[in-house]
Amino acid sequence: MKEEIISRKPFPGSEKIYIKGELFPIEVPMRKINLVDTVDIVDGKRVATPNAPVYVYDTSGPYTDPKADINLEKGLPDIRTAWLERRGDSDVLPELSSDYGRTRRNDPALADLRFDHIRLPRKAKAGRGLTQMYYAQQGVITEEMEYVAIRENQNAQAAGYETHITPEFVRAEIAAGRAIIPANINHVECEPMIIGRHFLTKINTNIGNSATSSSIDEEVEKAVWSCRWGGDTLMDLSTGAHIHETREWIIRNCPVPVGTVPIYQALEKVNGVAEDLTWEIFRDTLVEQCEQGVDYFTIHAGLLQEHLPHAAKRLTGIVSRGGSIMAKWMAAHKKQSFLYEHFDEICDLVAQYDTGLSLGDGLRPGSGHDANDAAQFGELETIGQLARRAWKKHVQVMIEGPGHVPMHKIKANMDKQLVDCKEAPFYTLGPIVTDIAPAYDHITSAIGAAMIGWYGTAMLCYVTPKEHLGLPDRDDVREGIITFKIAAHAADLAKRHPGAEIRDYAMSKARYEFRWKDQFNLALDPEKALAFFKAREGADEGGSKFCTMCGPHFCAMRISKDTTSCLNQ
Amino acid sequence: MKEEIISRKPFPGSEKIYIKGELFPIEVPMRKINLVDTVDIVDGKRVATPNAPVYVYDTSGPYTDPKADINLEKGLPDIRTAWLERRGDSDVLPELSSDYGRTRRNDPALADLRFDHIRLPRKAKAGRGLTQMYYAQQGVITEEMEYVAIRENQNAQAAGYETHITPEFVRAEIAAGRAIIPANINHVECEPMIIGRHFLTKINTNIGNSATSSSIDEEVEKAVWSCRWGGDTLMDLSTGAHIHETREWIIRNCPVPVGTVPIYQALEKVNGVAEDLTWEIFRDTLVEQCEQGVDYFTIHAGLLQEHLPHAAKRLTGIVSRGGSIMAKWMAAHKKQSFLYEHFDEICDLVAQYDTGLSLGDGLRPGSGHDANDAAQFGELETIGQLARRAWKKHVQVMIEGPGHVPMHKIKANMDKQLVDCKEAPFYTLGPIVTDIAPAYDHITSAIGAAMIGWYGTAMLCYVTPKEHLGLPDRDDVREGIITFKIAAHAADLAKRHPGAEIRDYAMSKARYEFRWKDQFNLALDPEKALAFFKAREGADEGGSKFCTMCGPHFCAMRISKDTTSCLNQ
Repeated sequence: MKEEIISRKPFPGSEKIYIKGELFPIEVPMRKINLVDTVDIVDGKRVATPNAPVYVYDTSGPYTDPKADINLEKGLPDIRTAWLERRGDSDVLPELSSDYGRTRRNDPALADLRFDHIRLPRKAKAGRGLTQMYYAQQGVITEEMEYVAIRENQNAQAAGYETHITPEFVRAEIAAGRAIIPANINHVECEPMIIGRHFLTKINTNIGNSATSSSIDEEVEKAVWSCRWGGDTLMDLSTGAHIHETREWIIRNCPVPVGTVPIYQALEKVNGVAEDLTWEIFRDTLVEQCEQGVDYFTIHAGLLQEHLPHAAKRLTGIVSRGGSIMAKWMAAHKKQSFLYEHFDEICDLVAQYDTGLSLGDGLRPGSGHDANDAAQFGELETIGQLARRAWKKHVQVMIEGPGHVPMHKIKANMDKQLVDCKEAPFYTLGPIVTDIAPAYDHITSAIGAAMIGWYGTAMLCYVTPKEHLGLPDRDDVREGIITFKIAAHAADLAKRHPGAEIRDYAMSKARYEFRWKDQFNLALDPEKALAFFKAREGADEGGSKFCTMCGPHFCAMRISKDTTSCLNQ
Repeated sequence: MKEEIISRKPFPGSEKIYIKGELFPIEVPMRKINLVDTVDIVDGKRVATPNAPVYVYDTSGPYTDPKADINLEKGLPDIRTAWLERRGDSDVLPELSSDYGRTRRNDPALADLRFDHIRLPRKAKAGRGLTQMYYAQQGVITEEMEYVAIRENQNAQAAGYETHITPEFVRAEIAAGRAIIPANINHVECEPMIIGRHFLTKINTNIGNSATSSSIDEEVEKAVWSCRWGGDTLMDLSTGAHIHETREWIIRNCPVPVGTVPIYQALEKVNGVAEDLTWEIFRDTLVEQCEQGVDYFTIHAGLLQEHLPHAAKRLTGIVSRGGSIMAKWMAAHKKQSFLYEHFDEICDLVAQYDTGLSLGDGLRPGSGHDANDAAQFGELETIGQLARRAWKKHVQVMIEGPGHVPMHKIKANMDKQLVDCKEAPFYTLGPIVTDIAPAYDHITSAIGAAMIGWYGTAMLCYVTPKEHLGLPDRDDVREGIITFKIAAHAADLAKRHPGAEIRDYAMSKARYEFRWKDQFNLALDPEKALAFFKAREGADEGGSKFCTMCGPHFCAMRISKDTTSCLNQ
């Protein structure tokens, strides 16, 4: 594993800073974008007025801190063990609990692939609650809660905005099930973040090798790349060989929560034959992954036998992989889903590690035609019941949503989810608002994502241009992330999240004042904005007093400035 | 001018067909996408079921008809002169009416640049009305009205949908001012199209050379390219030298309506000094362009002296070029806008050619911060009054809208426009829902465009990735167009426009049946979809029975098909 594959370049005009906690000895990373002065000529004299820096939520982890010592072989620094030890609610186990985990660890043939510094796993002391929801419901504020409160707030607070987000507000939202902090006690490298509709809208990215493609190196590189551009959580959807080893490398080097779909790995263990899946194999997979530090599991436990006849009537059947696997299992065995039957056991298990559950929508519509149908909404109702069962065990829960949905049917999804799932955070894929644009599905889905984010979805799963066509490469991942950062930020603006408009204001002010460098530095993708600007003829990054669309004689903003300054005199 | 620069390749799997009129001897071009059969194995036997072809609205003109004889030096075939002669409401003039037009025509230095086959212009007979609105209000259906009725309807009708769109419905909408057919009597090459919210949502593209870039060849090529990918109208925003000559070449070779902003050329005539503009220069520019065949003019006549103090308070002032030019003129002369003062004369003039008016929003917000402010809404109210004045002269009118608007403020724009402008068609730029994503503003604006299209905007002006940064190249134009086709189509789906979902249905059915070729052929951008697909490892265009995201063992749709066919037995 080579460090050179990792992009560590700090963002232009930006500093990595750390805000200290007041309740706990924590340090919350932020990106501070420093702006140049506004310069006016008043009575023939140059008058410079400073512009306040803009603080930006920073998912990139230590990689963009020039002072950080990065060693992929050792993984990121451990920031959470001290917090866990203070709470004293968990023990370090003498050995891995999963049979499969131990087998992989002891297989000499895997020595070259294996991460070298595997820690022994940590687990709740017998009978002790330790999830963030457990503490929240006890009225206790944790390090993680203060961390996310600072992280969500810094931008607004520095600019003097009133904000509702305090550690106590975070606690109350988690206690109510309206927000989650996915933070497995075995992912000690993770910088805590919160998912809930009264917080900043988040985005998830998917990576993962498939049977025929990509190596572990590539996957780690993709994970860091995803964090760099703004992915708030990362799902590892690997389906090929060495899933276990790849995941270890990713988690140890990943500063954001990692989610998985454990049924994928369980299916690999039965050689791809869905009918051969058993509760025992699935259970051991959960243990294996909990002890590696997976922060949330997508589990399609809401898809029941009774939903299948509805799915059989659809234009596009079942398009969720997890859903189709479970459908096949149920059809073959003529039995109820083992995920549903064992749901309470799943909750008891994951609660011991604080792995969250993301209740998967196995029946999400795969075409606009199937949107909001009996299959989809029937499953959503079951999922709502499961959320309440999980909460009884203090398990943190979010709810997955569609899929392909035309615009006029989007709001009904959000409204029904809020009612059926009692405001548990909604986490949607898109929705994709038309089926006819393969190669542009990052855009078809960003339209739906921005809207459903405004309506209240807490996290948006990104879609790349390769959706429906192939596996995304590095450029596709970046394109998908920036597109979804746009959707998420547009949602925050529309929700009037405190301080959401600060960056827009700073950008527009820089634009009107022809401070080109500030425009690039404030952009979601400074590199691409600068590259496009430089591609024009005669570009002059420093001081062009006109926009390239217009040319020097036609610049509306220049004329407007001249005119309005004349009017203002 | 070389034909080789033009992309004429027909779309894959598609035929150009022509539907004959019932009222008039007209031929309306459509693209027919032929699909392969669905093949099932029933009792061990191969059973093929045909899939109906999908008819697609086709803006590409004769260029994609392999039988058409294209000669850029001569321009496109004249399809409308016979209609105009039947109506007998216009005369061919013995000479150009514009002083400037004649000067350019007689300047030997321009011989090499000049289009060779300039027709003498046509103009209304003295005292005769001839606009589409005039006829509509007389209860008369024109060739253009039947043409657009067929064009809008073919897809739905062929699939057996009930549709409300008849030639009589078209007439009634135009009579009410709710829709326009921009069709200058001097643009005889134009294939008529309609803009109104009870019709398919349209998109406009902008091209135009600037002071330092691009030749006439390039502009003609860009115009054809824009039509190829789906631009419904084309605005020529050239600001450099040879505007007059470039425009002649474009109009003669353009199968879609061409719009301009005449103040740009007027300003060139006074060497870029806004204060030197006069009504006489502007008037002659209108005559010049009407006689070339410009189908609609953007005129910023709603921006008044009294609005300027509001604009002076803004974060980003005036970002419309036309608006800033007029603001400068008014501030310098301390006089009311000459466009406003001469508005009735403008209407009398353009009515003689049936050039439509697109009432420009000189005060569109240039940042989310300025959205829906007193400047913008004050101007909109004035524009509404102007629309009613234009209608009294039977001039077809549409209304331009913003701009930068966060999502929660979009609907107020549409609602106010409908009231203030008495349902005249709305034509918006975006809106751009966040300011912080330069290099991705096709996406920030597509989000707003899809929403405002759903709410009732009739035409969406495209935005390319280069917006705010530079001039779009060929790839940017295509990216911008496809992005806005997505927004427009998503709006049509959400409005439940009759038959809008036919293509989505066909695409999703093809996807579920692994008919890959049909998926590419039905895609908005078949070439890019196919290229992405081919880039995957082991791609097999013909018969892959799985999706590339998943690989063969994990394909949800394959498993779903197996399972549901088993359930259905």
